[in-house]
Amino acid sequence: MKRAIFDDDHEAFRASVAAFVERSVLPHVEQYADDKGLPREYWLEAGKQGLLGLEIPEAFGGAGAEDFRFNAVLAEELSKVNAALPSCTGIHSDIVAPYLVELTTEEQKARWLPRFVTGELLTAIAMTEPSGGSDLAALKTTAVRDGDEWVLNGSKTFITNGWSADLVIVAARTNPEKGAKGITLFAVETGMDGFSRGRKLDKVGQSESDTAELFFSDVRLSDAQVIGEVDRGFIAMMQRLPQERLSCAVSNVAHAKQILAETIEYAKERHAFSQPIGSFQHNKFLLAELVTRIESVEAYVDAAVLAHTRRELTAIDAAKVKWLSSQVQNEVLDHCVQLHGGYGYMNEYRVARAWRDARVTKIWAGSNEIMKELIGRDLGL
Amino acid sequence: MKRAIFDDDHEAFRASVAAFVERSVLPHVEQYADDKGLPREYWLEAGKQGLLGLEIPEAFGGAGAEDFRFNAVLAEELSKVNAALPSCTGIHSDIVAPYLVELTTEEQKARWLPRFVTGELLTAIAMTEPSGGSDLAALKTTAVRDGDEWVLNGSKTFITNGWSADLVIVAARTNPEKGAKGITLFAVETGMDGFSRGRKLDKVGQSESDTAELFFSDVRLSDAQVIGEVDRGFIAMMQRLPQERLSCAVSNVAHAKQILAETIEYAKERHAFSQPIGSFQHNKFLLAELVTRIESVEAYVDAAVLAHTRRELTAIDAAKVKWLSSQVQNEVLDHCVQLHGGYGYMNEYRVARAWRDARVTKIWAGSNEIMKELIGRDLGL
Amino acid sequence: MKRAIFDDDHEAFRASVAAFVERSVLPHVEQYADDKGLPREYWLEAGKQGLLGLEIPEAFGGAGAEDFRFNAVLAEELSKVNAALPSCTGIHSDIVAPYLVELTTEEQKARWLPRFVTGELLTAIAMTEPSGGSDLAALKTTAVRDGDEWVLNGSKTFITNGWSADLVIVAARTNPEKGAKGITLFAVETGMDGFSRGRKLDKVGQSESDTAELFFSDVRLSDAQVIGEVDRGFIAMMQRLPQERLSCAVSNVAHAKQILAETIEYAKERHAFSQPIGSFQHNKFLLAELVTRIESVEAYVDAAVLAHTRRELTAIDAAKVKWLSSQVQNEVLDHCVQLHGGYGYMNEYRVARAWRDARVTKIWAGSNEIMKELIGRDLGL
Amino acid sequence: MKRAIFDDDHEAFRASVAAFVERSVLPHVEQYADDKGLPREYWLEAGKQGLLGLEIPEAFGGAGAEDFRFNAVLAEELSKVNAALPSCTGIHSDIVAPYLVELTTEEQKARWLPRFVTGELLTAIAMTEPSGGSDLAALKTTAVRDGDEWVLNGSKTFITNGWSADLVIVAARTNPEKGAKGITLFAVETGMDGFSRGRKLDKVGQSESDTAELFFSDVRLSDAQVIGEVDRGFIAMMQRLPQERLSCAVSNVAHAKQILAETIEYAKERHAFSQPIGSFQHNKFLLAELVTRIESVEAYVDAAVLAHTRRELTAIDAAKVKWLSSQVQNEVLDHCVQLHGGYGYMNEYRVARAWRDARVTKIWAGSNEIMKELIGRDLGL
Repeated sequence: MKRAIFDDDHEAFRASVAAFVERSVLPHVEQYADDKGLPREYWLEAGKQGLLGLEIPEAFGGAGAEDFRFNAVLAEELSKVNAALPSCTGIHSDIVAPYLVELTTEEQKARWLPRFVTGELLTAIAMTEPSGGSDLAALKTTAVRDGDEWVLNGSKTFITNGWSADLVIVAARTNPEKGAKGITLFAVETGMDGFSRGRKLDKVGQSESDTAELFFSDVRLSDAQVIGEVDRGFIAMMQRLPQERLSCAVSNVAHAKQILAETIEYAKERHAFSQPIGSFQHNKFLLAELVTRIESVEAYVDAAVLAHTRRELTAIDAAKVKWLSSQVQNEVLDHCVQLHGGYGYMNEYRVARAWRDARVTKIWAGSNEIMKELIGRDLGL
Repeated sequence: MKRAIFDDDHEAFRASVAAFVERSVLPHVEQYADDKGLPREYWLEAGKQGLLGLEIPEAFGGAGAEDFRFNAVLAEELSKVNAALPSCTGIHSDIVAPYLVELTTEEQKARWLPRFVTGELLTAIAMTEPSGGSDLAALKTTAVRDGDEWVLNGSKTFITNGWSADLVIVAARTNPEKGAKGITLFAVETGMDGFSRGRKLDKVGQSESDTAELFFSDVRLSDAQVIGEVDRGFIAMMQRLPQERLSCAVSNVAHAKQILAETIEYAKERHAFSQPIGSFQHNKFLLAELVTRIESVEAYVDAAVLAHTRRELTAIDAAKVKWLSSQVQNEVLDHCVQLHGGYGYMNEYRVARAWRDARVTKIWAGSNEIMKELIGRDLGL
Repeated sequence: MKRAIFDDDHEAFRASVAAFVERSVLPHVEQYADDKGLPREYWLEAGKQGLLGLEIPEAFGGAGAEDFRFNAVLAEELSKVNAALPSCTGIHSDIVAPYLVELTTEEQKARWLPRFVTGELLTAIAMTEPSGGSDLAALKTTAVRDGDEWVLNGSKTFITNGWSADLVIVAARTNPEKGAKGITLFAVETGMDGFSRGRKLDKVGQSESDTAELFFSDVRLSDAQVIGEVDRGFIAMMQRLPQERLSCAVSNVAHAKQILAETIEYAKERHAFSQPIGSFQHNKFLLAELVTRIESVEAYVDAAVLAHTRRELTAIDAAKVKWLSSQVQNEVLDHCVQLHGGYGYMNEYRVARAWRDARVTKIWAGSNEIMKELIGRDLGL
Repeated sequence: MKRAIFDDDHEAFRASVAAFVERSVLPHVEQYADDKGLPREYWLEAGKQGLLGLEIPEAFGGAGAEDFRFNAVLAEELSKVNAALPSCTGIHSDIVAPYLVELTTEEQKARWLPRFVTGELLTAIAMTEPSGGSDLAALKTTAVRDGDEWVLNGSKTFITNGWSADLVIVAARTNPEKGAKGITLFAVETGMDGFSRGRKLDKVGQSESDTAELFFSDVRLSDAQVIGEVDRGFIAMMQRLPQERLSCAVSNVAHAKQILAETIEYAKERHAFSQPIGSFQHNKFLLAELVTRIESVEAYVDAAVLAHTRRELTAIDAAKVKWLSSQVQNEVLDHCVQLHGGYGYMNEYRVARAWRDARVTKIWAGSNEIMKELIGRDLGL
């Protein structure tokens, strides 16, 4: 179905993102995968094109767009390349950005935002811990007050951009007795004593993103590194999860939609038993189903994007579009692999990589099980 | 997710439909089921409330609304009662109405529409034949020219409102050599010689609707009974299928959504092993899933309703929302039955009836397989 | 796949059951449905053919077969007719029989078994209560000692054969402080003061079985009506659940297999778009899948039947075959309805009734959710 | 459910395979993956243990077992390590073996079989071509008679063991006019002029197996390299597909069963929200379902193994167990990944690799769609 949420400004922006992808990304994507990460040039180029500061006030070099549809357009165009690009970019510009804009002092803004926009200051956010999974309330990383500093100890894992980020927002327990009400966010920066990183994790997919474990051993942090209020980090994270989940949902749909479109073309061209494989009724019906399912989730996510643009998207609705989009994305891609036959199992084929890339979307950003728990609770169950 | 397609006028209309349902329908629904059909009083009351003429020009007593959202509101409110009410009512006011408004002469309009609006002239449409199923091009009913009349012979089956309709639009072959281009629509009316009906069919569900076989034995029809142009009936039907399918889709979603809401309440109240059954994590996650799935399809159907309001809904998009909504409706209701345990298997429970009612939505209005065939073809497969 | 669990004796017995069905059942099945119950003639004829006493010692007129494969053959042949026949017959001869054989005194055996075998004494078992569902430990029916008698009060629901049974085994709480260890089984017989029955329940399917609520109001029972040991009823029931579940599983598979076979025939004969509908690849693949799925569950149930014949079937394995067989049965039958198009929604078609019949198998005999709880517990989770 | 198809001899053989795995395989599995292939030592060790000649007559050093249950035991034990081991080993000892035993001359047997058994002569079979997928009748590789030799030209792809095999059975068209009746099998050996191989293919999973493209450019073959009769290769392949499919099915089940068992242990040990994740009802029910599904397919495959041992397994029944086992394997493993959370997406975890490994089983050995086509045809559809 024809979508109806974008106007001319969004489409113009889409064209500029597409041009950026064509010119600055596509020639290098194989290299990204081999290097297990995006090079700094990617970020600087994206910065130059104005893609990193959609949410950053104009005073600091951003677009101050305040219209999530631009973020959605960016995520969609990047998702057409692979699933890692929107993940890495989204962490920086959809997920970290609101923390640095909404919770920071003017001094912090001035210190970080200009370079955030240009891509000189690459960011990440570190919530998950090795023992904790989706259970944010069980954090073991601590920051203990010592004089007028904080001393940070602990570790984080599965951190997208973790290996390359210059600034990582780290959630740490500052008030152990107070549970979720004793968590504070800190900006930990490259070069700080006691901050180290493990190797780039060897993931099932999304090779183009660097994902790492982070270690904090007596990292000393001044108050100028505190993001938001002390002990209020949990609520700060909760308030920003809807945008993270929505960002994931947009990418999930666009990623699967792109590969599905390529698969339909493949099904028209590839012949077996003397006819295009897409003309076999089983495949024809299957592709009809998959197109319908993707469009249905797209309509749902679009409604969520509009709601978010109106500042009305609830955490629960974000949870709904997150889990469903990732579920459908994975189902669609599994069928796309099958339609490619043996080639679908070869890493040189985009569909094979897409299938591996997508698997994590049911797990991260709050696993789908966590989403259902939240939705169920909201139903009063 | 909060829906955003209706404005105050639609909601005011919703309130008036709800009042009609409360006052004129709910006290009699058991009787409808026992009688296997809606009484004429239902139609006259609905007519009095202005529910039957949404698409009929004001000149003939209708509302001339030209905004399918009002049709959608009507279908939704009726679907909250059961699935048969919107089916029967939709046949008359969503599906037959466009034929009688768009294809008729002024004389025909004057003859039929005023009583159509009041419910005095109840209508049905007869495409399906015993041997034909969804294959409209295989019609065996014929109308042969004899002098300045047509002589109709054949039979139709599975005709909703078929037993009680005063006027039935019948598709017949008038030019056997020309295949789909030799089909004409006729208005066959109660009392015409040679027009008879079988018994009310004993269906798995939707007991409140009368469904019948119709028999035509040398029924003589003047040209004044021809709807639209001779030999152009197939294209006339094709052009109106999108609205039929959309109408089905709206009802499918609203029906399942209502029963799901009731099931959630049941799951909060019913206890087993000393706790509300909805608090068991399996049930909680399941209900979270079902709510998400329904909302996702609702967003999709809503987008289709808006597109149709803009006159932009394609036959393919209508096919998509038709099959997916009926699939999800049935899946949701099957789980709702399960959540009711043994009571879900008792006909006195609404959920049991809803489950039986819904089964036909995957079959009628073009089976879901036909929908997938159309979508697949549209993909170029 | 060709089955390998039956030998010539079983096949000879199968032929005799088939002959009984042909002669004594098929001519009357419509009547059974209209009457919402099986007539006494059914039971007497079955008794005459030696079908009711497979598990009853020869001394009391039974076959003393001690080979569950005969029970399986009986269930399979009856399942070919409809799902209600094996349910009703299985309650009597698979489920109640072990209680009356294994837990009774010689006096009780002599009093009940000879007429049990002939069909003169029709039986049922009453565990479920209106408020309790699958939670046997929450029984509210009580039997209080008064002199040398017990006084039974309470009610039961969803009791198959409940309306027509001459003897009902009723589980009641005799020692409220002891929870599951304070439950006793009683034989309540027709004509006892204070024992009454509600109307035949109006079910979604299985019209041929009578299902009823039972009411006990100060029913006085002598010790001669106690089945097994006082306060040991819960364990007695637990020990006999595997056979009940296995009996269900056998019928579930045979029922779906029969309708699937008929659907395949229908798909070969019914034409649409000028070819047999079964020749459409979508339908062909679907039927291939359904046949495979049924055969797979059949192999699993067959393995369980063999294990039970060796007295090795565990309660957990019975739970596994019960839930999976009912799940697959329902999935298969839903597709069979769809393959019949509009006719699949007409009650006169066997497939329509089969679909309605089958829905309860996911609910009864311990809901599938209960089965999964048991299996999960057994896994140590 | 306890399995009942193996006797003491099979279990003794299982123990010896397990010992081989423990001693000679497990210490090297990481190396296999890094090398993208099994080293010759693997084959020689397996040969030494008598694992490669189960189907080879004793006269040539084999076991002459003629009992597929031994093959099944071998496949199962190797599947516990990963999915590539039974694939590679099965190609040699389950799939190629019957060709070399049943279709060869005494001279050929003497030339090949002794070294086949010791692992000195590693084999592969090459049917699939780049353009052909599952459509064996569309072969483009040709062997043209030239004097008393054949000249082979063409290419093959997706050949397991293709990079390392010493002898490859190649299907080529020898009589283009006769379609499937003009295909002949040739033994192409390492070192033959014109026989070359592409790089090891970069697959989504099964890194431990070498899969390659093979190229034949004017390879000259004497009659001594013809396997079986000229022009009879198609039927020879068709007759041996059941064993190939059964071999796949056995491995599919055993592979998923092993990872599921490990996942259950993980679910008991891993805590979230202060309890073992397996104790959450959603996970508990899910694991109960998965165990049941695996056991059900296992029972089905076991029945097929027994039938094959009796020489009664049909091609259709083999097709059924092949597709269903691969479908269930993939479904189970996807859930196992999810239960591992973020770790399930890390290649160092066995479950992540297993998930990637398994994806091909729905594609190879005749795609699942081909299986359904065959089954549907067998149903007369």
